[in-house]
Amino acid sequence: MADLFWPGDERADGLLDDGALLTAMVAVEQAWLDALVSAQVAPASAAADLTGAVGAADASALSAGAEAGGNPAIGLVALLRDRTTGETSRWLHRGLTSQDVVDTALVLCLREAVDRVLTDLDRQLVLLADLAHHHRDTVMVGRTLTQHAVPITFGTKAASWIDGLVDARTAVVGARDGLAVQVGGAAGTLAASVELTGSIDTALDLVDRTAAALDLPPAPAWHTSRTRMTRTGDALTTLADAWGHLAADVATLSRPEIGEVREGVGGGSSTMPHKSNPVLSVLLRRHAFAAPGLSSTLHVAAGAAVDERPDGAWHAEWATLRDLGRRSVVAAGQASELLAGLQVDPGAMSRTLAAAQGTDAEQQSMAALTGRAPAPDYLGAAHHVVDAAVTRARQAVRPAPEEGA
Amino acid sequence: MADLFWPGDERADGLLDDGALLTAMVAVEQAWLDALVSAQVAPASAAADLTGAVGAADASALSAGAEAGGNPAIGLVALLRDRTTGETSRWLHRGLTSQDVVDTALVLCLREAVDRVLTDLDRQLVLLADLAHHHRDTVMVGRTLTQHAVPITFGTKAASWIDGLVDARTAVVGARDGLAVQVGGAAGTLAASVELTGSIDTALDLVDRTAAALDLPPAPAWHTSRTRMTRTGDALTTLADAWGHLAADVATLSRPEIGEVREGVGGGSSTMPHKSNPVLSVLLRRHAFAAPGLSSTLHVAAGAAVDERPDGAWHAEWATLRDLGRRSVVAAGQASELLAGLQVDPGAMSRTLAAAQGTDAEQQSMAALTGRAPAPDYLGAAHHVVDAAVTRARQAVRPAPEEGA
Amino acid sequence: MADLFWPGDERADGLLDDGALLTAMVAVEQAWLDALVSAQVAPASAAADLTGAVGAADASALSAGAEAGGNPAIGLVALLRDRTTGETSRWLHRGLTSQDVVDTALVLCLREAVDRVLTDLDRQLVLLADLAHHHRDTVMVGRTLTQHAVPITFGTKAASWIDGLVDARTAVVGARDGLAVQVGGAAGTLAASVELTGSIDTALDLVDRTAAALDLPPAPAWHTSRTRMTRTGDALTTLADAWGHLAADVATLSRPEIGEVREGVGGGSSTMPHKSNPVLSVLLRRHAFAAPGLSSTLHVAAGAAVDERPDGAWHAEWATLRDLGRRSVVAAGQASELLAGLQVDPGAMSRTLAAAQGTDAEQQSMAALTGRAPAPDYLGAAHHVVDAAVTRARQAVRPAPEEGA
Amino acid sequence: MADLFWPGDERADGLLDDGALLTAMVAVEQAWLDALVSAQVAPASAAADLTGAVGAADASALSAGAEAGGNPAIGLVALLRDRTTGETSRWLHRGLTSQDVVDTALVLCLREAVDRVLTDLDRQLVLLADLAHHHRDTVMVGRTLTQHAVPITFGTKAASWIDGLVDARTAVVGARDGLAVQVGGAAGTLAASVELTGSIDTALDLVDRTAAALDLPPAPAWHTSRTRMTRTGDALTTLADAWGHLAADVATLSRPEIGEVREGVGGGSSTMPHKSNPVLSVLLRRHAFAAPGLSSTLHVAAGAAVDERPDGAWHAEWATLRDLGRRSVVAAGQASELLAGLQVDPGAMSRTLAAAQGTDAEQQSMAALTGRAPAPDYLGAAHHVVDAAVTRARQAVRPAPEEGA
Repeated sequence: MADLFWPGDERADGLLDDGALLTAMVAVEQAWLDALVSAQVAPASAAADLTGAVGAADASALSAGAEAGGNPAIGLVALLRDRTTGETSRWLHRGLTSQDVVDTALVLCLREAVDRVLTDLDRQLVLLADLAHHHRDTVMVGRTLTQHAVPITFGTKAASWIDGLVDARTAVVGARDGLAVQVGGAAGTLAASVELTGSIDTALDLVDRTAAALDLPPAPAWHTSRTRMTRTGDALTTLADAWGHLAADVATLSRPEIGEVREGVGGGSSTMPHKSNPVLSVLLRRHAFAAPGLSSTLHVAAGAAVDERPDGAWHAEWATLRDLGRRSVVAAGQASELLAGLQVDPGAMSRTLAAAQGTDAEQQSMAALTGRAPAPDYLGAAHHVVDAAVTRARQAVRPAPEEGA
Repeated sequence: MADLFWPGDERADGLLDDGALLTAMVAVEQAWLDALVSAQVAPASAAADLTGAVGAADASALSAGAEAGGNPAIGLVALLRDRTTGETSRWLHRGLTSQDVVDTALVLCLREAVDRVLTDLDRQLVLLADLAHHHRDTVMVGRTLTQHAVPITFGTKAASWIDGLVDARTAVVGARDGLAVQVGGAAGTLAASVELTGSIDTALDLVDRTAAALDLPPAPAWHTSRTRMTRTGDALTTLADAWGHLAADVATLSRPEIGEVREGVGGGSSTMPHKSNPVLSVLLRRHAFAAPGLSSTLHVAAGAAVDERPDGAWHAEWATLRDLGRRSVVAAGQASELLAGLQVDPGAMSRTLAAAQGTDAEQQSMAALTGRAPAPDYLGAAHHVVDAAVTRARQAVRPAPEEGA
Repeated sequence: MADLFWPGDERADGLLDDGALLTAMVAVEQAWLDALVSAQVAPASAAADLTGAVGAADASALSAGAEAGGNPAIGLVALLRDRTTGETSRWLHRGLTSQDVVDTALVLCLREAVDRVLTDLDRQLVLLADLAHHHRDTVMVGRTLTQHAVPITFGTKAASWIDGLVDARTAVVGARDGLAVQVGGAAGTLAASVELTGSIDTALDLVDRTAAALDLPPAPAWHTSRTRMTRTGDALTTLADAWGHLAADVATLSRPEIGEVREGVGGGSSTMPHKSNPVLSVLLRRHAFAAPGLSSTLHVAAGAAVDERPDGAWHAEWATLRDLGRRSVVAAGQASELLAGLQVDPGAMSRTLAAAQGTDAEQQSMAALTGRAPAPDYLGAAHHVVDAAVTRARQAVRPAPEEGA
Repeated sequence: MADLFWPGDERADGLLDDGALLTAMVAVEQAWLDALVSAQVAPASAAADLTGAVGAADASALSAGAEAGGNPAIGLVALLRDRTTGETSRWLHRGLTSQDVVDTALVLCLREAVDRVLTDLDRQLVLLADLAHHHRDTVMVGRTLTQHAVPITFGTKAASWIDGLVDARTAVVGARDGLAVQVGGAAGTLAASVELTGSIDTALDLVDRTAAALDLPPAPAWHTSRTRMTRTGDALTTLADAWGHLAADVATLSRPEIGEVREGVGGGSSTMPHKSNPVLSVLLRRHAFAAPGLSSTLHVAAGAAVDERPDGAWHAEWATLRDLGRRSVVAAGQASELLAGLQVDPGAMSRTLAAAQGTDAEQQSMAALTGRAPAPDYLGAAHHVVDAAVTRARQAVRPAPEEGA
């Protein structure tokens, strides 16, 4: 899917787009049908492979039809019933409601996008741990409110990027773990499933089977308690913030007057051939500017949830989550590329620091207080900061040991 | 373009999508090339028809290439140079910068979307003027903080919808008028054009010719003063608010316990055949929930503008404006359809009022104060409200008289 | 009013705070009472001077009481009735509803804040016109995506600040003109006033007298059409953007590696005595980061308006408008101070440009195209940009000539 | 502190206001001074009790002074140095930077507010568990997209409120646990502390002592990694969403045409004595409308963090966190009061369901599929939903068993 309005969008090809949503919705219907059959609620003859029954070619018609019912599941069910026969056609979707299908499909699509993000994120943490460690002694000037403050090391700067990414990773992993199946029926009470099965235990068993088939945790219906969605939005925005912070630093330090870092391959210009723009940083900043508006929409919608299915608040979530998810994948790839290619110039850093005014003022005033000569080893503290961050980065990405291993 | 994540999206087919942006970017290059030739800055042999030189089939490649330069204009210019020859290829784009092309193309696309919105909006004002007038005497209960307050008429309710839409129309028309050509060259100073032409007057003449060819007002370069974009976003969000207000009322009055209005054709359900959902209201409310997050992004970006072209803030605008623009077109069509089909039940309104407790309390306390019996003609005020709104609605849509007519 | 959480807040002392709101609410009740008496609806004996009947000492009790009714007007009316006697106590507030009082009082408070903002804004435009004109020939490097691009002048940079501020000024003045009286009675239909007066004409006359007394335009009731509030919020945020843009440039150019401008009096540090921070820019940027979230809340609220008085959406506006209004006043003072003291270093600008790589590339390629030597007068275009902006700035602040003058 | 613009504000008296911030900043300086002395870095004679050295009476002057340095800590340190003598005055604040003091003080204030919120939240979960259990068999109509769908019980509705609040509680507790001490010195490297102490181990010991004294977890400096603040904002907004959902339901069900619940004590009207408004729901909805804009500001700021202390992004956090924190306390009290007084009318619910059309359609179509008669026990599923939610609510508030108990 091309998107001229969001350069880099092709990095998210196949994720959270119409085709992916359609595939995921069919997977949900399949899992439910399989559950009905395997739990012997539906007859064995209802079993069918729905794969490919509906495909990308149907997206246009389904999209147009989605307006009439307010969501794309109604048309999909009609189409599936039309393209299947006999007991399959009769039993398909029975016990579910549109929201079950749409929410669970969104969850599947989001999880896939999040997994792509996490893969990149781990790569970034490895790169950053190496970078921080490598520049443990690369002295540069620290800047506060744009002005020269005191010496730091480039390692400590990389450590602050690590902190942001590790925290964001925790948030994203937590949000991923919260992405659960949605099965509640018309009003979230499983009433239709109980009617179909004759018992709440069997109804719950259907939910468990469906969840297991989709490799999702089961959960009580969450039709109007939208914390799973806001949590995902908040986590992805937290990650956008962390990349935004990193990109703001890279863009600043890439200014020609500073010239302490540069992106490996800069972007060009349509009229100025000499330019080498920090274009990955620019595009990461773009995402950081735009993400908060999207996650705020998820909260506005969650706070306006009413009745057993909201009248508009639910519908505002879908495209918002799609955009947050896809853009996170795009930014993840860009951030990995940025870090893989980042060029650091310790000489330039050293020259800036040497030319800076008053950056030893704090040290001098501390020394005056203690009566000792200024310690030559002010890097000790920086080493500690870096080493701790490197450890955090490496622990974050290390796979948990296998049980029994 | 199908969009399963935003039901109704096909209403905006052909507007503000990749194809439209590409066409608009080529139109900008064409207008500039024509200006160079007609002002005899470029030789006559540079003249060429660029129409069709680049098309939808190029979108994917251009989108992928857009990441390298950070915007889609760089690749487009390369492609155009590649597909033209001689003086055309040499002169094309000379004097422009990427931002000139992208901003002006966005302006062209936005204007087209806004025009579609305005057409629908005028239709809605005509429908609402009729509705308000027709229900000048349709008494119903007024509700404040969800509770029955005092009698109103359905006409006054329609009048409040008119007020919101007329105000929003003024804002949208104002924003449309501000959508101007962007021609500034690399840093907004027209330096390249002066270099090409040898004089600022000729350079300005090029801008005027380009603006005229695109039927846009000329303007000083606005590379870092983004009020034209925020104003458009604010106006479209103001319109989303007005529709949201209308839709909130329709959704509320459509509740079966109230039953005072209903959408002509309600939406269905995948599991409950008896339902008739106010689905157009639901989808309008969706837009009202999501629009404020988008226009806030435009402001965040405008306030972070820096240097002669910002490092990310500009890039965050494109998809945001696209979404606001397309969704406005979608909502415009839905709102027209809602109003065209709206069914009002004066009998139900009358029954609610009759059953309501204490709605004459205010009137009684006023009468006690004056010592007069409660006036039977409390509708007089409502008539005034309605008539004034109907007049406003009709004046808003009436075309300005031709000059000299 | 001190506010340690928003340094500079004292610049807005007396504006849009509890005391100001209380005073304004009493002024609204006074204007209405005067109208009732002067239109001979209430007896002459009802006339009274309410000034001082309620004061700052009552704020705490009223605030606590405001929760019970959901707004501060209910308690205020009770207090006024308690502290007046006879016909005054009987007639006071008759025909109004709480929302009339709160909305009109907010409008009065907002207008006062906006007027303070406009005074500062005009001062800034004068300063900027002088600054731009003074630096008409001060050559510096233009920067795009953080990198050196082509030469500009500091005058053209100041011109881009002017453009943003002039556009914002137009928006703010427009919003101010839209701040109208709110008088509609319980459900916006003036029914109570018609009951009191016996005729819609007299009721409308009461509205006109009230509006005139408060020097506000009359308007049909706008209880649920909140465009006046969103327009004010959008305009003030547009202004925050313009200051944010200016402050981002000043903060960037103040970086010690660039050193092309500096704030006249920099901010200090608690531990680094040598520092001179661009603290006014920092605080302006703060406002630009925070304002968009506030104006988006106004839109969310406007789009959720329902019934004849909304159930929460209206209530979300008050503190949001207060914060936007007060912070605009604070930022206005800070921006004036920043511009009054701004120090520009043409020598530093010149040195940066001389050291910059490739900034003549665009010019060379244009010259190659024309076959002429690069023109020495590339400043001509810049002059035009500056002169036009200076004219715009001066026209914006020039008072309109008196009629007949 | 009265706040006429945010009725109910007095519920947060003493929390996150100027006095509380001042007290917290002094507590931070005290903890650090104590650490310096107890670790024998400063001489014993530097020990002093700073309590009361600075108080509410200083807030105005400090607030005014805060603009000059950009934050309130600089003036506070000057004042403390002025009001202490000898070694105390010399050693005070040495090793800290303003951001250490402001951030840690904000953390202390936020934690106190969060604790107040959690107390109320637990009370609400107890009330809701009882409510859900009590209405395990209270049948009512479920509503989707405003229309009658299928039968549910009021217990399942309360269960959905529980789910939102339990999830939000988890988020708030997690955010609280992340609120850590901030000690990094000028650029976050502890360089000054190492200079003072001669060793990184002693410097880290100072941090630990300070954290322990304030009962906060120690942490690496987080000057530019703002996840602790965004996480708190997101959690409090998630809670606002959960209350908003509850309040939207209560406001809807309180509509006189529905009349299935009512707030125990409704709000009055200034002109309509008969009204009983669901005013607590209205004020909770207000908070839900306004909170997302605030938390989005925290993300915008976090994503714009740059250098070793950002130039405006940091400053935008303070008032935003204050507002989110105080409003959460206000809403917490209102939600507790709402739930404590909520009146449920099972008879009205039963009548609505009896009158509803087609609510057995789903059940009939399921029965048709199974060939069995519709089961009389469709409440079984609802019981399961309720019982599970009641268990979740009770487990959430149960204190963790003491270790070793």
